[in-house]
Amino acid sequence: MNPEKVVNSLVPQLKEFLNGSPAVLGVSGGVDSAVVLALCVRAVHKQRILPIIMPYGIQSIKDSVEVCKAFDIDNYQVINIQVQVDSFCFLLKSCLRFFSKILNVSSDDKLDVVTQGNVKARVRMMLLYAIANSFHGRVIGTTNKSEYYTGYFTKWGDGACDCEPIIDLYKTEVYEIAEFLNVPICSIAKPPSAELWEGQTDEQEMGVPYNKLDLFLANIVGNFDKEDFEFGSFEGDGLDKVIDLILGSSHKRVPPVPFSIGT
Amino acid sequence: MNPEKVVNSLVPQLKEFLNGSPAVLGVSGGVDSAVVLALCVRAVHKQRILPIIMPYGIQSIKDSVEVCKAFDIDNYQVINIQVQVDSFCFLLKSCLRFFSKILNVSSDDKLDVVTQGNVKARVRMMLLYAIANSFHGRVIGTTNKSEYYTGYFTKWGDGACDCEPIIDLYKTEVYEIAEFLNVPICSIAKPPSAELWEGQTDEQEMGVPYNKLDLFLANIVGNFDKEDFEFGSFEGDGLDKVIDLILGSSHKRVPPVPFSIGT
Repeated sequence: MNPEKVVNSLVPQLKEFLNGSPAVLGVSGGVDSAVVLALCVRAVHKQRILPIIMPYGIQSIKDSVEVCKAFDIDNYQVINIQVQVDSFCFLLKSCLRFFSKILNVSSDDKLDVVTQGNVKARVRMMLLYAIANSFHGRVIGTTNKSEYYTGYFTKWGDGACDCEPIIDLYKTEVYEIAEFLNVPICSIAKPPSAELWEGQTDEQEMGVPYNKLDLFLANIVGNFDKEDFEFGSFEGDGLDKVIDLILGSSHKRVPPVPFSIGT
Repeated sequence: MNPEKVVNSLVPQLKEFLNGSPAVLGVSGGVDSAVVLALCVRAVHKQRILPIIMPYGIQSIKDSVEVCKAFDIDNYQVINIQVQVDSFCFLLKSCLRFFSKILNVSSDDKLDVVTQGNVKARVRMMLLYAIANSFHGRVIGTTNKSEYYTGYFTKWGDGACDCEPIIDLYKTEVYEIAEFLNVPICSIAKPPSAELWEGQTDEQEMGVPYNKLDLFLANIVGNFDKEDFEFGSFEGDGLDKVIDLILGSSHKRVPPVPFSIGT
């Protein structure tokens, strides 16, 4: 991959897509949003970029701030989402207890970590869209190709945006672009994580490191409908879980299933 | 249209789609969600249906409750979203003031009615998904064909769900199905409204009554990419606004625009 060529392809697409509208994006401190911010900086005037840092509770904003500063952007906003998320989860509890009885399943009276993680991602989406709504902005997504195919994003959360500038780049390629764009080392060195719960890391959850995942994905992209995957040299190499992730997340890559009334 | 045939086509699709998972849906008291609830009742056991009534503030839940009762469903839950919505809007305000300065636009220090309406729709989506998350359920959408093509839904709000049972039915057809399914009169007689703000009605916002809108849509569906619409007998008949709605909402009918890095 030629990083310069890729950047020179993506920047005009972003500029054309925005067409004068402000770019609204969440900056997490991770490499994906850092790269997308860097692309925005090359595409439009920095006064037209509205970066939002949305920590939950005591989550550090140090890296997010460093990323903004690295691209000479001072007009970022910090909004802590904890009160929103916690009060939402509180609101849910009585409802969960009630439906647990109806469905005759046990209720441990607290939200599981995934449900809560999705709430965080969706509250962030709501904030980005409320800002975009108010200023006729566009919400710029930060999902990469590896996340997209493994479904490693929250449906209607971080997966909900107006455009996806780095969706054609595997995570390993995002790193190459990051170096080319002078993304600060704090973002590049950080273990990739959705940070939806304490200690979550992508590679631990997927069960394979990104370089291996990406090689595998590059070999099977386009074959997701096949009942049997062609493992080739990958067989038995911890990739069963990845296949489950790909197949189990197909609903995240399609619009709501439309029913037909026939003719 | 033969209502019986349509129902006999939709019910098995819903049953197959759910495949044993609980059906999670919002019941607003309007005709669309009433029809979808009625379809659910025919598709699966009522103990597998989780209807949620989500008023904002003093909004009446009378019609929603009547709809549930009409289909002999007692296990609905009521969750008032006002505290969530209001605290979210409060959280946003300082951020709006800040970005107003950056963008050099005036800020009247309160959210416009559309932004606030979208917040409501997205909070409802979050609730439905948190319930679905917790019980491996599926969120059943209630968007009809007239709303879909005019973009009369909130992106990542009520437009965000797992399947769309009535998306192939124009609003006028939804009424026919509603009568066939014995939907209570309170829902059928109610002026259609997204109820995102006080006094909002669909027909007022769209500028034309549904019977006219649907006739027009039926004539142009499939032709949305044409630069010039074939008005035919519709010309000058208040439909300019409808065309603007269709064209302006195309971004709501596609996934986030994926950028390509070329080859």
